[in-house]
Amino acid sequence: MKEVAIGIDIGGTNTKYGIVDRNGKILADSSHPTVSHKEIDKYVDALIDAILALSKTIGEELDIRGIGIGAPNANYFTGTIEYAPNLPWKGVIPLVEMIKERIDTHVFITNDANAAAIGEKVYGAAKGMDNFAVVTLGTGVGSGFVSNGKLIYGHDGFAGEFGHVTAVRGGRACTCGKRGCVETYAAARGLVLTVQEELAATQEETNLRHILPEKLTPKDIFEAAEAGDEVAKHAFEFTGKILGQSLADMVAYLSPKAIFIFGGVAKAGSWILDPTKKHMERNLLKIYKNKVDILPSGLPDSDAAILGSSALVWDELGLEELV
Amino acid sequence: MKEVAIGIDIGGTNTKYGIVDRNGKILADSSHPTVSHKEIDKYVDALIDAILALSKTIGEELDIRGIGIGAPNANYFTGTIEYAPNLPWKGVIPLVEMIKERIDTHVFITNDANAAAIGEKVYGAAKGMDNFAVVTLGTGVGSGFVSNGKLIYGHDGFAGEFGHVTAVRGGRACTCGKRGCVETYAAARGLVLTVQEELAATQEETNLRHILPEKLTPKDIFEAAEAGDEVAKHAFEFTGKILGQSLADMVAYLSPKAIFIFGGVAKAGSWILDPTKKHMERNLLKIYKNKVDILPSGLPDSDAAILGSSALVWDELGLEELV
Repeated sequence: MKEVAIGIDIGGTNTKYGIVDRNGKILADSSHPTVSHKEIDKYVDALIDAILALSKTIGEELDIRGIGIGAPNANYFTGTIEYAPNLPWKGVIPLVEMIKERIDTHVFITNDANAAAIGEKVYGAAKGMDNFAVVTLGTGVGSGFVSNGKLIYGHDGFAGEFGHVTAVRGGRACTCGKRGCVETYAAARGLVLTVQEELAATQEETNLRHILPEKLTPKDIFEAAEAGDEVAKHAFEFTGKILGQSLADMVAYLSPKAIFIFGGVAKAGSWILDPTKKHMERNLLKIYKNKVDILPSGLPDSDAAILGSSALVWDELGLEELV
Repeated sequence: MKEVAIGIDIGGTNTKYGIVDRNGKILADSSHPTVSHKEIDKYVDALIDAILALSKTIGEELDIRGIGIGAPNANYFTGTIEYAPNLPWKGVIPLVEMIKERIDTHVFITNDANAAAIGEKVYGAAKGMDNFAVVTLGTGVGSGFVSNGKLIYGHDGFAGEFGHVTAVRGGRACTCGKRGCVETYAAARGLVLTVQEELAATQEETNLRHILPEKLTPKDIFEAAEAGDEVAKHAFEFTGKILGQSLADMVAYLSPKAIFIFGGVAKAGSWILDPTKKHMERNLLKIYKNKVDILPSGLPDSDAAILGSSALVWDELGLEELV
């Protein structure tokens, strides 16, 4: 029997799931809309049915060692999803318990950024690292911190909200109600806002002027930078400055060996990583200088969500079992 | 035989040491000037001799389970003190190794704020807590973070420098070479600077005007506040605002159950703790509100350094052994 873990990534739009072996090879995967079932009971029924059906396509008998779930507002300690604004189910959803009622295996849940950190540790570029951070720059900014080889969950399961650390006191308004959060500068929308500010501050002719702000994506800005566009280059430089300054503070808290940067904005590669590294170094206490790597994720972007959530299973069952 | 741990606190001026039982009772303690021996070999010889002599004063046979040391710039992983500006020995001092050559027992070292955190965990108000922070407001600002029941050391042993997290971008010059560090506002000198700024900004008559800035202490400011002095009260309010804002970010990183505040500035009690709590709460993400306690240390101030360093021994040898 082949030992596998199930990885489930629950997003606002789609639920992705896959069957993953101990080496991080996805044997089969699929997805369906998260919103298809507004009643959580029916959603869970359909999800388990789909996973069991998927497992039969592999043509080999499987030993399902566990199910790992990455979801917004997920609480590792209680196994619940709590008041997730972008999911169709309201209130506190006891998802781990509901899945265990339907299938007899280990079930673990955490938020997507924590799952990404565990994915990096089990399959990715953080293998063997006991102290590192993962920062996801996507629609929002998420983070997962590993210290002494274990995720930092905090007392309530909600540690690791780097996106809502204050980068600029009194700065841009954040969806969370605060001002100047890292997310308002370093998430996709933050980068677009920075381009808007640059456009207002310069007469420079640039293609970016001719794209509606709500249509503008990090990919457009990346392509403009590649083509030599000064506004795009400045926007990445500014974003890297704000992000790097805040990462210098992260280092003073956690002294990680490496910080892995991940998500849509990170796809701009060195356009964003180079200024981030430069400004982090400038703001580091001397004892930390030239010791912390800023690296892209070691996981393939398209599979990262499934890999990360499945990795929870191997991590919880004990890495020492791994060959 | 009575099981004891030796606690040693190495400061720039004095080295304090004591013999402590498992319940945090100091059976005997003493101190001598740190600078008395500029050669580290002689310092260690004298220190070990003094500890052994002290242990003979107790009148009971002792089982010394280990030695714990708190010292500036101490590295837990390597057992060394590295380039400590305020100690008489230069370069990298392999103190743990040197002590082990002279006495056959377990020896552990960490910086003083980490020792304070372990002291809080083993003997103090953090007993049974797996996620908390200790912040020391003294000559500098130090911190120790406990997550999943273990100190966060980071990859190199130097995690937990909350004093050098940026509180105000471009703010006051710090001795570390950066600007706006928490320490420049919340350490003793930061509080005094705030009083100076308040005095310059107001015509208010106050006794604080008649004390030379270099003579002004947190105690003077506390006593003025107690007597109703508006400048002193404003200074604590401002300090609490800066500190509370930064603690809100700490919570977003670590989600501790409690933050213990310690050291000279913290002796002002509710004058500093109340505004700190208020401004922390104002800046917290909703999921953290009204969940994190700001508390004074549970260790007696005069004994905290010896208790903290001795606690390292019990913590390392395994709390599960404790009754």
